Order: sequence, then structure tokens, then C-alpha cells
Amino acid sequence: MMKQIFINAFIIAMTEGEKPFKGALGVENKIISYVGPVPTDEILHTYDQVIDMDGKAILPGFVNTHGHAAMSLLRGYADDLPLKTWLEEKMWPLEAKFTSEQVRAGTALSVLEMIQSGTTCFLDMYDHMDQVAEVVIESGIRGSLCRGAIGFGSEELRQSKLKEATEFAKTWHQAADGRITTMLSPHSPYTCSPNFIRQFIEKAVELNLPVHTHMSETAAEVQQNVDEYGVRPVEHLRNLGFFDIPSLVAHAVHLTEEEIDILAEYDVKVAHNPGSNLKLGSGIAPIPQMLKKGIRPGLATDGAASNNNLDMLEEIQLAALLHKGVHQDPEAVPADVALRMGTIFGAEALFLEKEIGTLEVGKKADFITFDLSGPHMYPQHDIVSHIVYSASRADIQDVYVDGKAIMLGRKCLTLDEEKIRFEAVKAFEAIAP
Amino acid sequence: MMKQIFINAFIIAMTEGEKPFKGALGVENKIISYVGPVPTDEILHTYDQVIDMDGKAILPGFVNTHGHAAMSLLRGYADDLPLKTWLEEKMWPLEAKFTSEQVRAGTALSVLEMIQSGTTCFLDMYDHMDQVAEVVIESGIRGSLCRGAIGFGSEELRQSKLKEATEFAKTWHQAADGRITTMLSPHSPYTCSPNFIRQFIEKAVELNLPVHTHMSETAAEVQQNVDEYGVRPVEHLRNLGFFDIPSLVAHAVHLTEEEIDILAEYDVKVAHNPGSNLKLGSGIAPIPQMLKKGIRPGLATDGAASNNNLDMLEEIQLAALLHKGVHQDPEAVPADVALRMGTIFGAEALFLEKEIGTLEVGKKADFITFDLSGPHMYPQHDIVSHIVYSASRADIQDVYVDGKAIMLGRKCLTLDEEKIRFEAVKAFEAIAP
Repeated sequence: MMKQIFINAFIIAMTEGEKPFKGALGVENKIISYVGPVPTDEILHTYDQVIDMDGKAILPGFVNTHGHAAMSLLRGYADDLPLKTWLEEKMWPLEAKFTSEQVRAGTALSVLEMIQSGTTCFLDMYDHMDQVAEVVIESGIRGSLCRGAIGFGSEELRQSKLKEATEFAKTWHQAADGRITTMLSPHSPYTCSPNFIRQFIEKAVELNLPVHTHMSETAAEVQQNVDEYGVRPVEHLRNLGFFDIPSLVAHAVHLTEEEIDILAEYDVKVAHNPGSNLKLGSGIAPIPQMLKKGIRPGLATDGAASNNNLDMLEEIQLAALLHKGVHQDPEAVPADVALRMGTIFGAEALFLEKEIGTLEVGKKADFITFDLSGPHMYPQHDIVSHIVYSASRADIQDVYVDGKAIMLGRKCLTLDEEKIRFEAVKAFEAIAP
Repeated sequence: MMKQIFINAFIIAMTEGEKPFKGALGVENKIISYVGPVPTDEILHTYDQVIDMDGKAILPGFVNTHGHAAMSLLRGYADDLPLKTWLEEKMWPLEAKFTSEQVRAGTALSVLEMIQSGTTCFLDMYDHMDQVAEVVIESGIRGSLCRGAIGFGSEELRQSKLKEATEFAKTWHQAADGRITTMLSPHSPYTCSPNFIRQFIEKAVELNLPVHTHMSETAAEVQQNVDEYGVRPVEHLRNLGFFDIPSLVAHAVHLTEEEIDILAEYDVKVAHNPGSNLKLGSGIAPIPQMLKKGIRPGLATDGAASNNNLDMLEEIQLAALLHKGVHQDPEAVPADVALRMGTIFGAEALFLEKEIGTLEVGKKADFITFDLSGPHMYPQHDIVSHIVYSASRADIQDVYVDGKAIMLGRKCLTLDEEKIRFEAVKAFEAIAP
């Protein structure tokens, strides 16, 4: 296996307390083998390849902790509507027509976009998940995948979904040389009965896998939970045992202080989706309060139909800006915390923090490079500040996963861009109303 | 003069009620001479140049209605601090050292960045404004310029600033073949005495120019106004006669319903700076309430030290997303309204709506093109939605001002990028503490 070293870059390792420094990153057999100052020529000669990264920063790839990749087919199809109308009148009727063809085409479109914006690992909760797994294999990206199950309809339908979700999780966990991991995922407390959620938890215990669900995204949904079950969603899920095993909740917008305490107590992971929550008018999650109580939220784009892109750098920027304004506190979410939310906190949210999320010896070589030469990156007083507040996704040059380049100089090496565009349009037209 | 026509583009004219259509834009003698369907070959032959824009959108250039271009030298120099500390302890001590060299270098850096992100017209309120005017001339961009005056210090100093501001406004108004216009600008009610503000208003009346100031950016500043003058800033400025002439206020974050009514009644223009207001923890301006009362706010980046970039597309995206989340109303600021805020509403805010801000026959040919081929722009259900919610500044390909290309294929044709970076670093180092 090739031994490579990237030298003269600003290394932003995202390890606790570490400041960016000009140095080198060594990679051997898919794993980070060195992080530190540029070694002597003698040592450099022991590498098969020495790559000069002068004028660039290297940081861990972004981790997108919640999404529905196939929904990019519906990007811009219905905007500026309330969540319930948007879901029930626009998304669900079209999604009901999705076959494996639509899921394959939409997922490929999304994965291409995610690679181009520096995401090296994404969570996907959807249907026809075999197709998603195939795109992960082909593209070289890393994926945490789960078959999301809505519990409407007959008991027979529910049981077939549970079985499919379980089979998928069992079959694909640790596939693609570990690039694919899986979770079990009842869609939400408002679309799944307590009993159905309990069955997912049981399967997760059996397979030793985490669970993932939507929780407290809108005020209406919280009220509905109270009306139906007499408690708010956090207590509801706690009572069901959801938090007794490794669990990740998406959104967590409408929370009381007491609910934040419960999430902190059970070490529940949170996927914060600032762009989607704003766009759908759902509200703004209490991130500063969560941070104060020790919760380390990951960031996520949600599906492209409610964002409308899959740009993790935008979510990082939103996380850094939004809470300052809402709380009238310019120290609410500092730049380096926002960047941690997009990298190591995201890795923790997917229970992958031992493998990815920082640049540390022994971790998998999932990293991205930023070009620092644009006028918006000058003067270079503070590289982390510039990446968080000033950069755009187009400054991202290279993307590596498992030490393998999947984008170089903004060109994706693993996917055929023109074919993907063509197939996305074709797949949408096949189901267009 | 050359007669050009751009064909096969999605034309987003931003005129009231007009939907994007596939068509053509003709330009003759700096002026838009045609907007409509692609003409017949016979007519196309009457043009000197026919440019195929298939796969691109053409829209009016962005209008940045408030900023301090030279402050890009301090980008990332001091982040995540409250406005007062940030201004008084970080910005002002360094800015006090700014000479014409710093202003020239910082402004050139900013104008390059603005061109690369599709801004064709910007307002600048700063010092050493001759330097800013020279950069406008050299770069080919359009500028609405004013010497901002802080009223601290001696009466002699104040009078010299007033004189300088007036001389600048008189000398440069309508220079560079009309690309430069000017305003008069006392910095703010908290840095200028009522008498000093009144003197600016008198000069503005004399020269028939608009006035511009900062207003109600922070809650503390509003309280200070009440403590010192017994009224909030809106009533204060109204009493001084500021609103009796064409006037533009930046920020307008902390407003009562009654104050919004006053701004609407006097047709006061508003520059909304969502990114800067969030980053400094100032708060969130009541834009939906303003829109309901007929105010048409422009958008602005503010200086790069508080943003930290000059990307108007980010401000458009923030304007479209932010207010939906804050008001839990997904219809708060629809995509097309946000895009109007960044174009025609901005032109109105600078009193240039007869010349720029839409693609209409007779207006100046200030326009930009977007590449629509990225995966994030597919499928193409709604081009306006994609530009507002999904695009990034790097999708902007070409920038024209007065019919002249100042950027083509993302390469700025009028400014030397390497020299500008070098001089920005040099200019900062000359004043570094």
C-alpha cells in the first residue's frame, strides 16, 4: 500500500485545544500515520509520494449527520410551504412513486454534490437502501445508512418494513471495507406507534446497532405528541427505552430545559439541521443551551428538498452565525466550535469518533483541502475564522476517504457527472405529475 | 459602440411579476436594448456579437447597500466579540492607523471579492474616499460613495470632516461616466451630535444628495439614545429632519411597530445586513414586518471584519432563510423577494432604481451570469429557487457593468489578483500591532 505525505499545509486537526499549524500529514494503508511538522528530507524519502500543499489547509472531512439523499430529485419542486403541507401534499405523493431507479439517481446526484462540498461521511435515512449502499461503494464516500420506516398502513406493511430495515442493517454493516455502517430507524414518534418504535429498539439491541429518528422538529408535532400520549416527545422516547441504547435524534428544535437535561443525561446524540429548520419555518434549536450542558451536536443538511443544497460548510456557517443573532450574544457558538460540530461532533453523533472526525494518528484518512488564495481568505489572520465565516464550498479542492482521492482539483474522480445529471432528470420525468 | 446579444439564457429580469424565461438580452452603448425571446437569425445578424449562453442564467448584478470596503484588511482579526468591544478595542485603534495606503489596498481586495461574487454596485462609507473612487474607476464596478464622519473630538476636527465629506461628494458625484454617485453620511446618532447631523442634512439639501447613516443596530445603542436624548433613534432622526430628504439607514434591527410605520411613512430606505447583525450578536431586523408595511429593504454585507466576507448571495440566502425560522413562518420571505432585495430593492435603496436593478430596456447593462450545470442546480424545477437556496458565489461566471465585461469565466479582467493580495498583506503589516 502506498505511503503518502502531504507537506507545507495548514493542518487543522480539530483535536481538543490544537491550533492550526503549518506542517504535514502522512497516510499509510488508509490510515493517518503522521501529523506534525514537515519531517526532514531523510524521512520524506521513506514515503512513496510527497505532495506539496503550500497555500492550502487540510482538515477532517465534513460529517453530515442526517439526510435523505434521494430527495434531491425534488429540490426546488415545492418551496416556502409549512412542513405538514410540504410533506403531506408535495413530498409524500411524489415520493410514493419512487422506485429503486429514483433512489439510485437522486442519491448519486446528492453524493456527487456532497463530495464537491467536502463531505466525506453522510447519514442517510430512506427507502430502497441497497441502492444507496451501491452508490456509497461506487463513489468512495463513507455512509451511515438506515432504512427509515413510517408506520402508517397495515400491520403487515409495518412488519415488512421492520424486516427490510433489519435485513438491510445486518447485511451492510461494515461493508465496503468498513465504509458502510448501519443504524435502525423508525421515522418519528408522529409517524410510528409506540409499539412499532419498541420493535425497532429490540432489533437494535439484538444487532448491537444505534437507533436514529426525527424528534421535536416542529411545535405542532410536539403538541400532537402531548395530545396523543400525554407527554412531550423526549419523555415519550425515554419511556420507550429509545435512549437506553446509542441513539441519534434529528432536529431537536422544540425542547424545554428539562428535556435538554434528559438528552444530556442519556448522552443522546443530536443532528442539528439549521438550514432545513429555517427554511421550513420549524424554528431554531437551542444549541447554546445544549453546548452548556455538555451535548455536542453534529450538523446536517437534511434532504435537498428542504435546504435546498447539501453544503455542510453552509450549515457550519449558519451554526456559527444564527445562534449569535438569536441570543444577541456574539460568543454563542464560536467559529472553532461550529467547525467541530461539522467534523468531530458529527463523527460522535454517528458513533464513529474512534475512526474519523479529527486528524490523528491511527484514524482513517478522511480529509479535505481548502485553497486559501481567494481574496476573501486574505489577510490570513485566522484560518479557522476564514473557513467558517468567509470561505465557500468552491474553495474545497481535494477530498480523500480511506486515504483514497475521490476529488482532486474539484474534479470528482469516482462518479460521472454528466451521466448523473442526465439520469436525475430522466428519473424525475418518469414520475412527474 | 458594440452591439451585443446574449442568447439562449434563462433571463431573470426581476421586473414585477415576470417569470424567468429562456431568451435573449441585447446591449448597445452601455444600455440594455432588448429583453425577450431569441430573435430571428435576420435580426441576430444586425448585432456585432452574438454570445451563446446556453446552460446559464442572466440576472441583474447584486447591489450591496452598506459597507466599509477597506475593513477587509481586518477580516478575521478579531471575531466573536460584542459590537462595542469589537469596535472600541479592536477595530478603532487599528483603523486610526489607516492611511490612504491601507484604504487603497483594503478596498481593492474587497472590490475584487465583490466582483467575484456578482456585485455590480456597492455603497461604501469610509475615510480616504478618493482612494475608493480610484478603485471604482480602475475596476469598472459601480459605487455609491460617502465619507463617513464620526463626530468625536474637537469642533475643528468635525468641521474638517464635514468639509472633506462635502468636497468629496461634490467632486465625485456622477464621475466615471456616472458609475460613481455620492451621498453624505454622518456615522450614527451615537457618534454624532444632533447639531453635526443637522449640518450634514443641510449640505445634502444644498447638493441635492441623499443621506446615509447607521441606525438602531444594537439594543444598547437604542437605550443610549433614549438616555441622552429622551427618544429612540427613529424619532431622534425624524426630529432632526433626516427623513425629510432621501435617506438610507443601515441595520434598523431594533425597531418598534411605530418606528416601522415612521420609516414607511417617510419612505426611508433600509439596508438589511443579516450576516453582520448575526455575527456581532446585534439581533435580527424585523424584515417581514417591514415588507408588510411596504418598505422594500435592500441587502448589504457591512464590512468584511464583521461578516466576514462580501458575498451578497449569502446575504440573499440568509434573508430568505432567517426570517422563516425566527417567525416560524415558511412564507416569511419567499425566494423571489430575497432575490429582489439583493437587486432591485438595493437599487431603490441607493436611489438608482431608474438606472439599475432589473433587466429592462433603457437601463444600464449591469448583469451577471450563473452557471446552472452543478449537481446542486439539478433537476431544474425552479431556477430562482436554485439561485437563492442552492447556488454558491462560485457558480457566478461573468460580470458586466455598463455593458463592459469585468469578469469572464470567473477571471476578473480589470484587477491584478496577485498584486492585490500582496498589497493587502503589506498594508496590514505596516500597521500591525
